[in-house]
Amino acid sequence: MKSAIAELEQKARAAKAASRRMAYLSAEVKNKALHNISDDLLAKKDEILAANQADYEDAQASGMSDAMLDRLMLSAERLEAIAQDVLAVVALPDPVGDVFDMRTLPNGLLLGRRRVPLGVIGAIYESRPNVTIDISVLCLKSGNAIILRGGKEAIRSNSALAKVVQEAAARAGVPEGAVQFIENTDRALVNKMLKMRDLIDLVVPRGGAGLIKLITENATMPVVSGGVGVCHTYVDKSADVNKAVAIAFNAKVQRPTVCNALDTLLVHADIAQRCLPLVAAEWAKAGVEMHCDKRAMAILKPNSSLKLVPAKDDDWGKEFLSLVAAVKVVDSLDEALEHIERYGSGHSEAIISEEYRAAMRFLDEVDAACVYVNASTRFTDGGQFGLGAEVGISTQKFHARGPLGVKELTSYKWIIFGSGQVRP
Amino acid sequence: MKSAIAELEQKARAAKAASRRMAYLSAEVKNKALHNISDDLLAKKDEILAANQADYEDAQASGMSDAMLDRLMLSAERLEAIAQDVLAVVALPDPVGDVFDMRTLPNGLLLGRRRVPLGVIGAIYESRPNVTIDISVLCLKSGNAIILRGGKEAIRSNSALAKVVQEAAARAGVPEGAVQFIENTDRALVNKMLKMRDLIDLVVPRGGAGLIKLITENATMPVVSGGVGVCHTYVDKSADVNKAVAIAFNAKVQRPTVCNALDTLLVHADIAQRCLPLVAAEWAKAGVEMHCDKRAMAILKPNSSLKLVPAKDDDWGKEFLSLVAAVKVVDSLDEALEHIERYGSGHSEAIISEEYRAAMRFLDEVDAACVYVNASTRFTDGGQFGLGAEVGISTQKFHARGPLGVKELTSYKWIIFGSGQVRP
Repeated sequence: MKSAIAELEQKARAAKAASRRMAYLSAEVKNKALHNISDDLLAKKDEILAANQADYEDAQASGMSDAMLDRLMLSAERLEAIAQDVLAVVALPDPVGDVFDMRTLPNGLLLGRRRVPLGVIGAIYESRPNVTIDISVLCLKSGNAIILRGGKEAIRSNSALAKVVQEAAARAGVPEGAVQFIENTDRALVNKMLKMRDLIDLVVPRGGAGLIKLITENATMPVVSGGVGVCHTYVDKSADVNKAVAIAFNAKVQRPTVCNALDTLLVHADIAQRCLPLVAAEWAKAGVEMHCDKRAMAILKPNSSLKLVPAKDDDWGKEFLSLVAAVKVVDSLDEALEHIERYGSGHSEAIISEEYRAAMRFLDEVDAACVYVNASTRFTDGGQFGLGAEVGISTQKFHARGPLGVKELTSYKWIIFGSGQVRP
Repeated sequence: MKSAIAELEQKARAAKAASRRMAYLSAEVKNKALHNISDDLLAKKDEILAANQADYEDAQASGMSDAMLDRLMLSAERLEAIAQDVLAVVALPDPVGDVFDMRTLPNGLLLGRRRVPLGVIGAIYESRPNVTIDISVLCLKSGNAIILRGGKEAIRSNSALAKVVQEAAARAGVPEGAVQFIENTDRALVNKMLKMRDLIDLVVPRGGAGLIKLITENATMPVVSGGVGVCHTYVDKSADVNKAVAIAFNAKVQRPTVCNALDTLLVHADIAQRCLPLVAAEWAKAGVEMHCDKRAMAILKPNSSLKLVPAKDDDWGKEFLSLVAAVKVVDSLDEALEHIERYGSGHSEAIISEEYRAAMRFLDEVDAACVYVNASTRFTDGGQFGLGAEVGISTQKFHARGPLGVKELTSYKWIIFGSGQVRP
């Protein structure tokens, strides 16, 4: 263990040293590295898939669930899709070097903020080996050095993929040491990493709630985490019912396992009788189970083909990540706003309304990363928002909020051009 | 103690509730509150000064140092200056409500980022009662609720000033609860505050290194701290000697007790013989003590009127905060860059050079909040940079770097105007 910690420290120092040179690496070199990665993923397909096969067999033997096995598995098609995604990042504008707020002060000093990489990013993740490529590519694009620490279930896959990244980056002229991979999967190393405030500028966790909790509670440096998405859609009394039905269906059903899917539907009492049965009928086609408050239950009960369950207290504010939705009838926009304030997780919230004032109040008063009028919360995504690939979705307010693209992996420094100025 | 903690929690909850309404408070109301504060500081001068006098006498009796007593003391003149500074913040543009990156996506969604307050800011500070006003005013301007927790030496002054802020804000229509003051000065309450991640969005410490260390190490929420400023000025071989002398003098002498003052002067060997004696002669007039490496010592020793001390290892990377400077002769720009990389604290660094390539390399390669060419590091300041009043100077890379103005006390939320869009 002692030697593993020493090795981790040595790798972190090497990453820090490389990050100084990464800061002013040209977009050309960074994009060349990404191109090489895309090429090598295909050229070294056999080695990667063999490593993945070994991981898969061990995981299967140890009784891993099918859902987890699916996350772990790579295939030729999946590798091709990953290689293609890398090229999409090449096409993004380079976030580094951009200068903003530049101006000349009365004393002649010319000053502005120049965008620079954050430095060293530590990625701590679980069983999806594609994260090795995703995070490496976003970090390289944004000029950051990276320390990769994946889960033990995918250690051989991750190791093979990290080797691809390291070789491809070196061939393009990326400074040696910019991509570090930690082979040792002991948990103690994660705790050690989280204390390396001087060497790691940001930690990006990717995985389940347990991992994210462990990291946010123990990291001494900033952490950007996907966070929990408890998303509400509120159908106002003035809603266009067709829009409400289409949006509620899309938000719940299109991909129920993700953080921007609908968890709770709030419906104004004046429109509930007309709207709720239509939403419920659509949801029923997809097998959605509805956890209803008393009034919603009273409206929906006549339709015996619905999956209805009386809502319990802990259904409010729950992230279902499945084909389950909580449903509540409210008496006013104010009641909807209070419910969202109390139970929302600050991720994505929507109002369906044709009334201007209600829509504007919702936009003003809801405190969440993404606030929608008449659209599905499923749009909360870096790609959908036009940011390109995303590192994650932040429900924090500090630094960046909502989908995080490569620009959000940067900081800035003030640059000041003088001609001998001194402060009076 | 238990009741003090319960009271703190209740105040923090009240601040959080108020912050929801603060988020969409008009600039008019916020500026009115600031105007009222400015007026009331003068109108209630006698009460404030009497409270301060009581603090002062206790502190004096307890043997507080003169420097500390000076920080603690208020006077009619100082109150007038503070009241004037408040009006300067009124004049700043409101950072909240600004919408940026707004655009229409191909699917017709209109989306952008709207600037919003961070929420609740916890200010933890020591013996300067003016911080009560400074921080309150910057938080109100940026739409944040605030929890004030000052040191026990200034408890009566702080209490009187907080009352001014609370009454002035309420009269303008700021939501009740937006300004909270913690009367109890027990240290345990600070530790409790630092765990209130759900209620406090940002902590701003103001005080000595001990306080800042305590807070950065124990806070569970983001912290913005002034940080340490170990500032270098590097005189390149191509420097204009007159500029070098004037800038080195200004950076060291104009106000030696602050974080952006010069700590180490690095001089290229080719120009040291010509430049160093001139810098030293100017510094000597102000009584600067020079901690010299061997080569600097050899050059300066002939002048017996200088205060010269052989540099020790720990002089490099030390923040002197006094009329002391470390001086080192280097053989190249590369050596200077390496020295700064090793010993700098990422605050403010300057090169004095007439060579284009050296200046540009310095700007590219130095990793600091503020990087200067041919100007004094003393300019690192919100007011000097045109940001208006500053909350502090950040040496972190996350969220904001360098001088922090009211805009840096904000975040943003994505607002999305749809017309029924669903994700394909």
